Amino acid sequence: MLTSWGVSCVASARVLVAGASGYAGALAARLVERHPRLELAAITSRSDVGKPLRALYAHHRVDAVLEELDVDGPHGEVDAAIVAYPHGAAAPAVAALHARGVKVIDLSADFRLRSLDTYEDWYVEHSAPELLAHAVYGLPERYREELRDASLVANPGCFPTAAVLALAPLAPYLTDVVIDAKTGVSGAGRAATDATHFVSVTENAKAYKVGAHRHTPEIEQELEAAGGPAALAISFTPHLLPLDQGELLSCYLRLEDSAPPAAELLAAAYAAEPFVELVPGPPGVRDVRETNLCALNVVEDPRTGRTLVFAALDNLWKGTSSQAVQNLNLMLGLPEGEGIS
Amino acid sequence: MLTSWGVSCVASARVLVAGASGYAGALAARLVERHPRLELAAITSRSDVGKPLRALYAHHRVDAVLEELDVDGPHGEVDAAIVAYPHGAAAPAVAALHARGVKVIDLSADFRLRSLDTYEDWYVEHSAPELLAHAVYGLPERYREELRDASLVANPGCFPTAAVLALAPLAPYLTDVVIDAKTGVSGAGRAATDATHFVSVTENAKAYKVGAHRHTPEIEQELEAAGGPAALAISFTPHLLPLDQGELLSCYLRLEDSAPPAAELLAAAYAAEPFVELVPGPPGVRDVRETNLCALNVVEDPRTGRTLVFAALDNLWKGTSSQAVQNLNLMLGLPEGEGIS
Amino acid sequence: MLTSWGVSCVASARVLVAGASGYAGALAARLVERHPRLELAAITSRSDVGKPLRALYAHHRVDAVLEELDVDGPHGEVDAAIVAYPHGAAAPAVAALHARGVKVIDLSADFRLRSLDTYEDWYVEHSAPELLAHAVYGLPERYREELRDASLVANPGCFPTAAVLALAPLAPYLTDVVIDAKTGVSGAGRAATDATHFVSVTENAKAYKVGAHRHTPEIEQELEAAGGPAALAISFTPHLLPLDQGELLSCYLRLEDSAPPAAELLAAAYAAEPFVELVPGPPGVRDVRETNLCALNVVEDPRTGRTLVFAALDNLWKGTSSQAVQNLNLMLGLPEGEGIS
Amino acid sequence: MLTSWGVSCVASARVLVAGASGYAGALAARLVERHPRLELAAITSRSDVGKPLRALYAHHRVDAVLEELDVDGPHGEVDAAIVAYPHGAAAPAVAALHARGVKVIDLSADFRLRSLDTYEDWYVEHSAPELLAHAVYGLPERYREELRDASLVANPGCFPTAAVLALAPLAPYLTDVVIDAKTGVSGAGRAATDATHFVSVTENAKAYKVGAHRHTPEIEQELEAAGGPAALAISFTPHLLPLDQGELLSCYLRLEDSAPPAAELLAAAYAAEPFVELVPGPPGVRDVRETNLCALNVVEDPRTGRTLVFAALDNLWKGTSSQAVQNLNLMLGLPEGEGIS
Repeated sequence: MLTSWGVSCVASARVLVAGASGYAGALAARLVERHPRLELAAITSRSDVGKPLRALYAHHRVDAVLEELDVDGPHGEVDAAIVAYPHGAAAPAVAALHARGVKVIDLSADFRLRSLDTYEDWYVEHSAPELLAHAVYGLPERYREELRDASLVANPGCFPTAAVLALAPLAPYLTDVVIDAKTGVSGAGRAATDATHFVSVTENAKAYKVGAHRHTPEIEQELEAAGGPAALAISFTPHLLPLDQGELLSCYLRLEDSAPPAAELLAAAYAAEPFVELVPGPPGVRDVRETNLCALNVVEDPRTGRTLVFAALDNLWKGTSSQAVQNLNLMLGLPEGEGIS
Repeated sequence: MLTSWGVSCVASARVLVAGASGYAGALAARLVERHPRLELAAITSRSDVGKPLRALYAHHRVDAVLEELDVDGPHGEVDAAIVAYPHGAAAPAVAALHARGVKVIDLSADFRLRSLDTYEDWYVEHSAPELLAHAVYGLPERYREELRDASLVANPGCFPTAAVLALAPLAPYLTDVVIDAKTGVSGAGRAATDATHFVSVTENAKAYKVGAHRHTPEIEQELEAAGGPAALAISFTPHLLPLDQGELLSCYLRLEDSAPPAAELLAAAYAAEPFVELVPGPPGVRDVRETNLCALNVVEDPRTGRTLVFAALDNLWKGTSSQAVQNLNLMLGLPEGEGIS
Repeated sequence: MLTSWGVSCVASARVLVAGASGYAGALAARLVERHPRLELAAITSRSDVGKPLRALYAHHRVDAVLEELDVDGPHGEVDAAIVAYPHGAAAPAVAALHARGVKVIDLSADFRLRSLDTYEDWYVEHSAPELLAHAVYGLPERYREELRDASLVANPGCFPTAAVLALAPLAPYLTDVVIDAKTGVSGAGRAATDATHFVSVTENAKAYKVGAHRHTPEIEQELEAAGGPAALAISFTPHLLPLDQGELLSCYLRLEDSAPPAAELLAAAYAAEPFVELVPGPPGVRDVRETNLCALNVVEDPRTGRTLVFAALDNLWKGTSSQAVQNLNLMLGLPEGEGIS
Repeated sequence: MLTSWGVSCVASARVLVAGASGYAGALAARLVERHPRLELAAITSRSDVGKPLRALYAHHRVDAVLEELDVDGPHGEVDAAIVAYPHGAAAPAVAALHARGVKVIDLSADFRLRSLDTYEDWYVEHSAPELLAHAVYGLPERYREELRDASLVANPGCFPTAAVLALAPLAPYLTDVVIDAKTGVSGAGRAATDATHFVSVTENAKAYKVGAHRHTPEIEQELEAAGGPAALAISFTPHLLPLDQGELLSCYLRLEDSAPPAAELLAAAYAAEPFVELVPGPPGVRDVRETNLCALNVVEDPRTGRTLVFAALDNLWKGTSSQAVQNLNLMLGLPEGEGIS
């Protein structure tokens, strides 16, 4: 059909959100429900079956009731699914839905790393390695055309989204990369632990998973894909801050002497991108809260010869769920910003 | 006299705190007042004369009334003074007190940089350059013996305190230094501005003064004094976090191949230091809140060949006011930890 | 004209926001700019003329430039104006715009109190008392029909919005009212003061303006208008909390023995209201953040014979700016929820 | 022995803290360890046996290792014990220690209510009702003399500590009491739950346990003991705020017409009390953070005929653990403020 906007699109795709009781899945459910051309077909959960989502997240105002996932039943008949399971648990559910012809966006790490070895080094044994070759990395600013035809999309990690948007245009010139990342607590998910207890977090700030965060190989993969040096080992260190949503990456770079100015490279790369903002000063995470935007700022430091890039986004939105809807729009032939602008 | 602790010391030194209406001065006044062997002789302010300090800071419980500074009167007759004025304004007050034989600890930057040119490049014209040669840099872990005989102490900046404690023992081997600093809002002082408004800070995080923070030359001076390479230009970038007190420095280093393990260098340097803690994992700023401690943690990252050092302290305590009392104890021959342990 | 929604409405009303550099005015400007059937004609400021609003509030993404108010020039020719000035300063601007035929929504207190004496008792001398008779109190749930024909709307205070929505349906039966109000810092406005400094607010909570808050007579006026006893003196006590946006009122009531159940009275009053939610447990302010909703919950306490009503809203949205747009929609014949749902 | 203070006291009492892995027990352990005349004999835990307390609470700097409680072994031979178990679980441990001649301070609710029926109505079946008659309610400002001779002390709840300090001197004149209580998250304890997750709490505020909080009968018992009317049913409603430590009670009262001014009653009651502060304006919880102080402020509101009393304390300090040490000092004949001033 042809809409009045002149865009070929489905009238209303039916979308399942599996794992909707977590932060990412719940937000995905809300965004799908409010989307003018998507229908929230069902939401599932492994822990809260029978509860309306509103009982868990009053502010999302989604009245649908959490069901048990039934891929052989109605959940296998939807047009598309967003799967918000932990890594390892995601792959079988993704495989089952994909086998029934459902277009799948996987929010976990299970299909992000193109190398099975790298995945199994950093994560666990993979239960559906045969699908790796079908997965498209869901960063529209890098893989827009592939995403239009994708049947399986690996939605990027929140840190890699920011890091790759900040650095991919500079990748061919990078010689040294230190990324100091700061994140709000929602990035740790809904699980109540000592580390996410309010008393542990308020008036505190600390590094975690130093030298060992699983988003590291994902960033390295994408920088190499963008033309970066093959053996570029980046330093990536996340810190937990006393805030809810938001992520700030401070990237300390050295570029080859022959490199064009970083600001020009970023400006050229993102001139036509609706969801990347080049801003005149260091962005605060507040500036992009609850948006699908990533804000970037470049500072050249002649004293040290370094180039600094700051990248801010909302880890639950552009870092996860609104980016999933952006990908879904591309897969379904809808306007890319529909429902997330 | 000889106390029962076997330490030669004054019975009770009379101490002035000038500029006690700001965060640092107010805390200094409280620490002096509670100190078992110091007497708070007077507190002064340029903005709140006539008010009891308790009216400004209920939690400090200091009933003394803020006076106008009168160096020619009683304020010139105290044994020691802590001056908590902004840079530029501090030098004349320090000079006047010093000329009357008062031992002075200056919390501003005015006497920290040994090079007049560097000071005037980064700050303003200096009004008392003749005193620079008399000033001792007030980091006890580096200058303990000089501090015992000092008549003028330049109390370090909060960031340099953490940075120099983290890096000085490694200085001879450093080849590359990136410092990503995170600080609470009290570091910006009591002035109410758009930047310190609760609404600007909560749920936010952002870099500021990128490539231009005035603590940079101070860190470079002290690393060179500790045996670092002469032209080592460090990258130092502060970030403002939604917390009150606390400072975390994440230092990304490259060391010469011949360097001993960083953990060993730090362990050797601080084995006998009462106020430096080597901790087994990345410290949170909460761990050292309202203490005179600096917590350090070293992580070697073989993937990237970098050494990481994390340093946490309370910017108002070890970063400023309790360190001033530590210096005062040394200058007066008192036990170093008296009143701040 | 008749739109496809069957509603008679203007094609696109041109709206001025005066005082757009404050929190309320800035949000109003953003809501007007994004509104599908309003055009942001101009924004003005008394303090930041010449700056784009984006420079003050990056997250609102409004590029319009702040101008000086010129009622005799183009600003007097708009269809409608939202005036976000402090009380006292608002009345002359409102009068000038109103005199030129501009429909005005005043966010200040200047036209909320129908009694000039009460206004002048609690505020200042009134500069445009002749307009009081023309002003309609802008709480759509109470004055919807009057608002459709209004030329001057007095937008309610944030606390009265919550209090009147919570209590008006119970007014005829009230015999005793204690309201303990809790508010985020944005309610204090953009002015940077000791009281709004991050360090003053974080990890703190305290009452302010005890027995003296100017929203008290406004609440009493509206409860009497709703059938409450004439001399009902309510206890209203606000508290400042360490949060940004959000307001919670805990109302401790005694009702006449003959009163129907409070829950039934509220349910009947709000059955058809799109922006009042009756919720099953005490609402959190987070549940209604950045919405035009007021959430209400009733608890009967048989032990004490009291009825408790909890009311939560976002002080900048339903408490101020989105409610202004709701009122504007009514005044202009637009669907009431357009641009704020 | 007779000390130089003229107080008969033990040289160094050996103190056990049972349940030291929770917030209250951990702080009690720290206070005991730093106390100049107490020795921390052992710390026990039901969940973290074998861990040093420092591994759970870096900021407390207590290196002792958590053990399993062994009442028949060395733990039965200490001079005194602070038991920080949940209600129900506390009574058997308290009884076992008490039977071995250990002086016990119980932080739970198990021995606070003198009426077994009331206890069992609000809590669970009591396992050691025979001890109720031996327990002294551990509010020194009300029961100082009884505490000196007590062998079992029921440490008050945090809310009752504030409420009883605020209201007991007014009790004979009270005719109506509404208490709106606000508390930080540490009051909910260390258990990681949905309710204590940072994301649930930040930028939020909500009431909980409305009409059902178990501190209600405790407050009523103590107001009646202070001369209040027998059937005074108070309205007590707690709210959870986004802060760590701190508790604010806003008390809305009606007093008999014949009552003396409330401010005078409180001034007379607390003239000689070292840990109750009468302050000139509404106290913030920040003012008493990490102290054993309760700050009180009285406001008479002639408009409504109500008396308002605001009470602020630190729920973990005066509300629990430092008050336990205050009680311990009394029981052991030590200066009452030793180790907590």
